[in-house]
Amino acid sequence: MHNQVLALRNLIRSDAPLIHNITNVVVTNFTANGLYAAGAKPVMAYAPEEAADMAAAADALVLNIGTLSSATNEAMLIAGKAANKHGIPVILDPVGAGATSFRTESAAMLLQELDIALIRGNSGEIASLAGSEAVVRGVDASAAPADAAASAAKLAASRQTTVCMTGEVDVITDGSNTLTVHNGSPSLQDITGAGCLLSSIAAAFISRSDSPLEGAAAACAYYGVCAEAAADRQPFPGPGHFQVHLLDMLQQLSDEQLNQQLIIKEAAL
Amino acid sequence: MHNQVLALRNLIRSDAPLIHNITNVVVTNFTANGLYAAGAKPVMAYAPEEAADMAAAADALVLNIGTLSSATNEAMLIAGKAANKHGIPVILDPVGAGATSFRTESAAMLLQELDIALIRGNSGEIASLAGSEAVVRGVDASAAPADAAASAAKLAASRQTTVCMTGEVDVITDGSNTLTVHNGSPSLQDITGAGCLLSSIAAAFISRSDSPLEGAAAACAYYGVCAEAAADRQPFPGPGHFQVHLLDMLQQLSDEQLNQQLIIKEAAL
Amino acid sequence: MHNQVLALRNLIRSDAPLIHNITNVVVTNFTANGLYAAGAKPVMAYAPEEAADMAAAADALVLNIGTLSSATNEAMLIAGKAANKHGIPVILDPVGAGATSFRTESAAMLLQELDIALIRGNSGEIASLAGSEAVVRGVDASAAPADAAASAAKLAASRQTTVCMTGEVDVITDGSNTLTVHNGSPSLQDITGAGCLLSSIAAAFISRSDSPLEGAAAACAYYGVCAEAAADRQPFPGPGHFQVHLLDMLQQLSDEQLNQQLIIKEAAL
Repeated sequence: MHNQVLALRNLIRSDAPLIHNITNVVVTNFTANGLYAAGAKPVMAYAPEEAADMAAAADALVLNIGTLSSATNEAMLIAGKAANKHGIPVILDPVGAGATSFRTESAAMLLQELDIALIRGNSGEIASLAGSEAVVRGVDASAAPADAAASAAKLAASRQTTVCMTGEVDVITDGSNTLTVHNGSPSLQDITGAGCLLSSIAAAFISRSDSPLEGAAAACAYYGVCAEAAADRQPFPGPGHFQVHLLDMLQQLSDEQLNQQLIIKEAAL
Repeated sequence: MHNQVLALRNLIRSDAPLIHNITNVVVTNFTANGLYAAGAKPVMAYAPEEAADMAAAADALVLNIGTLSSATNEAMLIAGKAANKHGIPVILDPVGAGATSFRTESAAMLLQELDIALIRGNSGEIASLAGSEAVVRGVDASAAPADAAASAAKLAASRQTTVCMTGEVDVITDGSNTLTVHNGSPSLQDITGAGCLLSSIAAAFISRSDSPLEGAAAACAYYGVCAEAAADRQPFPGPGHFQVHLLDMLQQLSDEQLNQQLIIKEAAL
Repeated sequence: MHNQVLALRNLIRSDAPLIHNITNVVVTNFTANGLYAAGAKPVMAYAPEEAADMAAAADALVLNIGTLSSATNEAMLIAGKAANKHGIPVILDPVGAGATSFRTESAAMLLQELDIALIRGNSGEIASLAGSEAVVRGVDASAAPADAAASAAKLAASRQTTVCMTGEVDVITDGSNTLTVHNGSPSLQDITGAGCLLSSIAAAFISRSDSPLEGAAAACAYYGVCAEAAADRQPFPGPGHFQVHLLDMLQQLSDEQLNQQLIIKEAAL
């Protein structure tokens, strides 16, 4: 898959796909800057009055429930249906699913009503959507349970979608085929929005790929290598500089370094 | 105009004008930090219950429709009318006008109902407000059409306002007189909110100037030279560091460097 | 108190308390990143539908009225009552109280309806809540009036709470006992959200302390020494880098430096 990762990364830079984000108020700025750095174009539009128009003009749509409200719920449904109608891929980031019933039910409602190309979440969120009795507190992942990858595959199969469960190893599965990505940095857990931004970058990759499975795996590898490169830069350490370096590397990472460091494997579940 | 740019920049630092921003959720933090760095005081207040009180206490009001909703539409109208009543200048940033009819119509409604001192936008947004068949996708400028400056002058004349159309060259026009500013850095396009922050900084300059035309041109020159200085600093390149350096330079830029690098010209349209 | 400050700082790192923030849209990202850097876990949840569930699962709740709306007012009440019911400390940051009657009344309503463990504000906000004729313009502190500390003690006594009034010297008082903290950096005034983040960090300290008075004083000392360390790092000066260094130091500050630089005194009012 090395060539596909490089090809997708460069397609994003040449095509500048427009990514429509309906996301949480914590990560809007970081998400927009991360998408620009990767070569894509972000747009945020939350009003029910324009959600359909903006989604229809976009190359991918990201629905992130991190600071959900009934108003954004409505905008997500409107935008999602417009995207489905025009064949535009929809990415769901179920932030904090399992932490409150409002979040769990909102995520389930979006899964029920929309055709979702990719669900990107941490192990607790994925387990919660798969129906496990996951213990989710706040919006951070706890240690992945032993059967996390099986939960992901079960969720993908039952919902006929692709699941990207990120953690120390990222697992991307459509229920039949599974890829694992072995890149990243522990520093990603020290900043807010690292997972949210990955969801939006996965949207950019999927907008240029025939396969959500391969698009999401390529996005995880690219993002993980950028994080590795950011953690190697000076001055470090500290989450302030890590965040700055990560934005730098999303733009400046060389194809050579990406090719050399990315690790994607086929896995049997 | 060199002396006026320096004088205005230092008036902002000594007076610390209060700039009331009703702006989009992507750029709130960057806008507030940029205003502090320039020496002004930001305040964000969106609730209809307090929008009039806050606008009446401010030195300028910025209305930015980047993540519009019907609720913020209402707050913008209330704040704008209070500002007009008290003679406080109102700056409109029509983010994404032309991209959806909701945005185009909201911007037109604000222009109709309020006395706007300055419209600050990119070429697509300005062309859209001027009634051209501009193709606007998302919130980023496409290449400026050949007649962009004429569109800006037409819009300024028909609305009896001043228009600041930013791009590789910034065009500021009141329909009769036109200034161009030849400062800036391509890196401004790599980060989110660069235009939004300029709108708020223009508000600070206009709050201390007799002429929106000269105030906006001075703001563009100051902001452009800060961007040039930021792009020259180490470590660079990358959008993460560029953003950090830009905030630094908005505060630390010397009068000498500003005086030496700023380029403002009178133009015939 | 030196040992208690160190002990609390390290308890936060080992326990990772979950801090539920209902805060303003300007500072969400900086607050979340600052809490992560300090070792706590942030969560933002604003919807009335989930505010009670999230607050009940948290270790402390922060209510910040910086960009208030009637909807967030409602969510704050719901979350605050749930927190009170479960014995979870509630911290109020009355941003801009005194600047508009909507803010002043909203803060007064929250103080009336909820059991507040700590009020954290600047001198103008505290004076306004104490009933003084404070002149508050926007959301920034003016020079502290001579009787500011007396106002803080009066407010604490009348509301049976603890007040943390931050400024060049931080005053923490429960009406009977008063501590002052003599750490910090003038650069904190050059960035947005410095006070808001301190409120959330105080929440983390109070979640691990038997005394809001001591918890808040420890938080002020830790935060102030981090600011001092940030202002000493290279490259500086400038608010862009100061913000990055501050996030770094919240994570990386050594116990030795904290112990050596922190200054907390008992004060007689």
